[in-house]
Amino acid sequence: MSEVAQTLEGWYALHDFRLIDWTAWEAADEHVRQAAVDELQTYLKEWQAMEDSKAGSTAFYSIIGQKADLVFMFLRETLEELSELETAFNKSIFAKFTYPAYSYVSVVELSNYMTPPGTDPMQNPDIMARLKPILPKWNHICFYPMNKRREGNDNWYMLGMDERRTLMRSHGMIGRQYAGKVKQIITGSVGFDNWEWGVTLFAEDPLQFKKLVYEMRFDEVSARYGDFGDFYVGNLLNEEKLVQLLK
Amino acid sequence: MSEVAQTLEGWYALHDFRLIDWTAWEAADEHVRQAAVDELQTYLKEWQAMEDSKAGSTAFYSIIGQKADLVFMFLRETLEELSELETAFNKSIFAKFTYPAYSYVSVVELSNYMTPPGTDPMQNPDIMARLKPILPKWNHICFYPMNKRREGNDNWYMLGMDERRTLMRSHGMIGRQYAGKVKQIITGSVGFDNWEWGVTLFAEDPLQFKKLVYEMRFDEVSARYGDFGDFYVGNLLNEEKLVQLLK
Amino acid sequence: MSEVAQTLEGWYALHDFRLIDWTAWEAADEHVRQAAVDELQTYLKEWQAMEDSKAGSTAFYSIIGQKADLVFMFLRETLEELSELETAFNKSIFAKFTYPAYSYVSVVELSNYMTPPGTDPMQNPDIMARLKPILPKWNHICFYPMNKRREGNDNWYMLGMDERRTLMRSHGMIGRQYAGKVKQIITGSVGFDNWEWGVTLFAEDPLQFKKLVYEMRFDEVSARYGDFGDFYVGNLLNEEKLVQLLK
Amino acid sequence: MSEVAQTLEGWYALHDFRLIDWTAWEAADEHVRQAAVDELQTYLKEWQAMEDSKAGSTAFYSIIGQKADLVFMFLRETLEELSELETAFNKSIFAKFTYPAYSYVSVVELSNYMTPPGTDPMQNPDIMARLKPILPKWNHICFYPMNKRREGNDNWYMLGMDERRTLMRSHGMIGRQYAGKVKQIITGSVGFDNWEWGVTLFAEDPLQFKKLVYEMRFDEVSARYGDFGDFYVGNLLNEEKLVQLLK
Amino acid sequence: MSEVAQTLEGWYALHDFRLIDWTAWEAADEHVRQAAVDELQTYLKEWQAMEDSKAGSTAFYSIIGQKADLVFMFLRETLEELSELETAFNKSIFAKFTYPAYSYVSVVELSNYMTPPGTDPMQNPDIMARLKPILPKWNHICFYPMNKRREGNDNWYMLGMDERRTLMRSHGMIGRQYAGKVKQIITGSVGFDNWEWGVTLFAEDPLQFKKLVYEMRFDEVSARYGDFGDFYVGNLLNEEKLVQLLK
Repeated sequence: MSEVAQTLEGWYALHDFRLIDWTAWEAADEHVRQAAVDELQTYLKEWQAMEDSKAGSTAFYSIIGQKADLVFMFLRETLEELSELETAFNKSIFAKFTYPAYSYVSVVELSNYMTPPGTDPMQNPDIMARLKPILPKWNHICFYPMNKRREGNDNWYMLGMDERRTLMRSHGMIGRQYAGKVKQIITGSVGFDNWEWGVTLFAEDPLQFKKLVYEMRFDEVSARYGDFGDFYVGNLLNEEKLVQLLK
Repeated sequence: MSEVAQTLEGWYALHDFRLIDWTAWEAADEHVRQAAVDELQTYLKEWQAMEDSKAGSTAFYSIIGQKADLVFMFLRETLEELSELETAFNKSIFAKFTYPAYSYVSVVELSNYMTPPGTDPMQNPDIMARLKPILPKWNHICFYPMNKRREGNDNWYMLGMDERRTLMRSHGMIGRQYAGKVKQIITGSVGFDNWEWGVTLFAEDPLQFKKLVYEMRFDEVSARYGDFGDFYVGNLLNEEKLVQLLK
Repeated sequence: MSEVAQTLEGWYALHDFRLIDWTAWEAADEHVRQAAVDELQTYLKEWQAMEDSKAGSTAFYSIIGQKADLVFMFLRETLEELSELETAFNKSIFAKFTYPAYSYVSVVELSNYMTPPGTDPMQNPDIMARLKPILPKWNHICFYPMNKRREGNDNWYMLGMDERRTLMRSHGMIGRQYAGKVKQIITGSVGFDNWEWGVTLFAEDPLQFKKLVYEMRFDEVSARYGDFGDFYVGNLLNEEKLVQLLK
Repeated sequence: MSEVAQTLEGWYALHDFRLIDWTAWEAADEHVRQAAVDELQTYLKEWQAMEDSKAGSTAFYSIIGQKADLVFMFLRETLEELSELETAFNKSIFAKFTYPAYSYVSVVELSNYMTPPGTDPMQNPDIMARLKPILPKWNHICFYPMNKRREGNDNWYMLGMDERRTLMRSHGMIGRQYAGKVKQIITGSVGFDNWEWGVTLFAEDPLQFKKLVYEMRFDEVSARYGDFGDFYVGNLLNEEKLVQLLK
Repeated sequence: MSEVAQTLEGWYALHDFRLIDWTAWEAADEHVRQAAVDELQTYLKEWQAMEDSKAGSTAFYSIIGQKADLVFMFLRETLEELSELETAFNKSIFAKFTYPAYSYVSVVELSNYMTPPGTDPMQNPDIMARLKPILPKWNHICFYPMNKRREGNDNWYMLGMDERRTLMRSHGMIGRQYAGKVKQIITGSVGFDNWEWGVTLFAEDPLQFKKLVYEMRFDEVSARYGDFGDFYVGNLLNEEKLVQLLK
């Protein structure tokens, strides 16, 4: 058996992608629509209060294309809180005008392939901040799930620890070149959802998503060992823009 | 032909994943909703009575994310009983407010890769208890189906019995490290459903699911020979929480 | 080109899997439900009369899990008769309360890998009975479609006739060990449906499905050359049980 | 780059598979159903007139199993005509009682792997008749789409022209053994639809589909290089049978 | 790590494929249909004005077969504009009579595998025109997404830059033979959508799509390294034809 890569886990994550039923929404009575928006705004305020008290973080974006209209990304301390959020949303008036499109359950994860041996990462405030991150309110989001491949000679999990560490180091260096341009949150989903990781990227310029992911694809970690799920890209919403969208 | 691994079978299992039609549920008359909940509670009591008399066992959990809202996991002596349970549920009032999301038909299975030759496992009370297990009421559930791979050089079923036994022994030792943290029920589904096995895990701390499944992935049995289906993760429900969920 | 395996064909087969729309069924007027059941019983009698006159055979089972609620398996002399049956069923009252779930079009097939050269299998009454079989009314059914694999070095259709014959002989010997416990009907579907064969198994004890299919999986024919579709397992219905189910 | 196989193209083809909404059809007023049938008969006459004037050809068959109830196969001079046909059908009364099930866009194609060099195939009246064929009204139809495989060592498009020509010649000889029993129309769909070719077979005896496709599967062109989509098999309809079906 | 191929990006692209709900459309009141068409015409005029001012470009085509009825292809400066267009369309009356069928989010891309080193492509007016192209109003459109393959020995991203450049040059020369017959717009979608590129072709004669794509398939870049998604083919619409279609 290969040596297992150690991981650190922080907040649990739920990505909740939704399609809006525009026909029903526009057919609804004005006061129903208003009640839906009011209730949604109440939730936005609650979620903001959670974030202000560092008990979690929330981001919401519109999604481009037919795969979804909206995504809510929630980070919370426990799976129970995520479940309660989801149930509360499902019971909301606005949810009645949406269809589920896709969801992802995972947990913020740091791999310590890069941690110097002999140090305790949990004593590192930078690492703690990355395990319980306040989501940036940058203009664009990109989400995709991924696996490390296990096919024939391209089997990540049969590589030795040293080889994996070397490969991940080179991979990480690409990411570091995008510091300030792309913020990346890796969430682990082994045992929680259908892929092994979720990748959530934030950028002010969406072209940086393309440049980063494309550059990484030439790196052996992705080229030989990366399998990717569906990609979602979106634009930042805030309370005002969300109200505008639903006008 | 490779020597066949012998297996022992116990109770049949039905995992019944459901989505709730929240729009219809909330639009229903209060007395219809009450009747649905009352009827469901009657079923819960019946299922508990079955469990008390060791004629089967039942667990129910809420599922996080859009893949399902609920799972009922039933263990019973016969496929006929599972079928009757399913029909009764389908005819219930509450079922009218749900959609099928996923189901899995299997039978509790123990592989005797590890049994010392010359012993009769059916005389072993511990083994009998594992073949007809009372499902734990731990806080979290994780379910996924899996196959042993048959692809090119990674063909489990072309390995000799000794090689498979050695690999499974190392695999089993990982599981044993999680004793007390994760309870694992393996159900065989060859000839019953689309994958060869279902894996149902229970834990008080859901992070243990991730740690166990991830650690196993570096083990050759999973790394080279494991193919995995969809993963479902959930939170324990009991009568009170179920009533609360449906409020 | 490899020598082609000769096959013998008998009755055409239609497996018609259906889901019941329980909500609509229970919402229907009692007299509509009664008319649906009466009409269905009339069909059951007609199908039984066909079977009594050896012009075909019919089996119907409930299916466990969400993939289907019922399967009707029809064997008839021609595709036209199967088409008429299907249309008649589609026009029936009961069909209005069902959804299509899955279907399979094939023809009862015997491969003569095992036939001694120089004999005429069509003069063999046992073979003729197997080509136009009366379906057993055993307690359980198992259905799955399958292909012989054509991937890299695991390409069944590139093997020589002698190698295929040797492999199939060993495969057939496994089946023979289950004589009296599992009745197996192989239907060929090359040119008719999406897989190359359908396998329909009948048993009084459903565990025998698992044991047979699992044992075969270690045999090189399945281990290296078998690709399998969805598995369906069910319980015998008769007129009385069907009426009971629809109560 | 391998030498490209030259192809000749004739009429464009649209295969339009439909499911009938039997519940809605039987719930419709008798005069609506009659108007639907009358309109459909008008179309059938128009399509027959097109065929009589050699401006195209049309076939329609019922399909067995749940994948579809009907297929209309249209051959026309241009994609625009196919589009107009499709729109007209979509606007028809009968179409309101159908669901789309599958469609295929392609063009009648002859490969000249077999053409002697130095001859002009377009001067050959037999070839011209095969490029703009009047569809036979034989009792049965079989349709499936296919690709030539490009996987590892089984990559058709990396073979040299001579090797491909030799392989295709042996393949074609199998087809010729079925002359008079199976009529085969190959339509190319590279750039038009999801597979590279559509294969439409006609036969009086449907067993000939199975025998032909199965025999070809042992030929290296199919065994190593053929990937196949869904198979559809059906029975001939004519005006009278179509009216009968819709009774 | 292989040297990364540099790319230039221009306008963002949204391909929006729609199915028309013909039953609802024909059941609608004449004045609703008229309002839908009027509003749609207003949008067409707005989109034309954008194109006239070189702030973007729009094309719309009918699609043949059941995969879609229409495609709107939008090129705009920003993802935000594409999102606004999409929302405006979703809120339109006509959209209420359509279903989403498929969409694709990408950005016009030029690879500079072919750019002579030492030149600045952004100073090249021809290149700038290709990055912000006015879509041709040719009779036919063909769209398909694609990946460069990463499988075993056929791994594009593990090739050296020189080898990729040589392969792409030969590939590009095929395209150049179709100059004047096929106009090709490549859009990159790494980080934006599920495939790495979208290919949109325009031609007056649709047979040229088939000839170009088929010829390329024998080229090593496609033969060994190309994976292709669904293909869509359509006929040009303009305001008049769109109104006609909706009559």
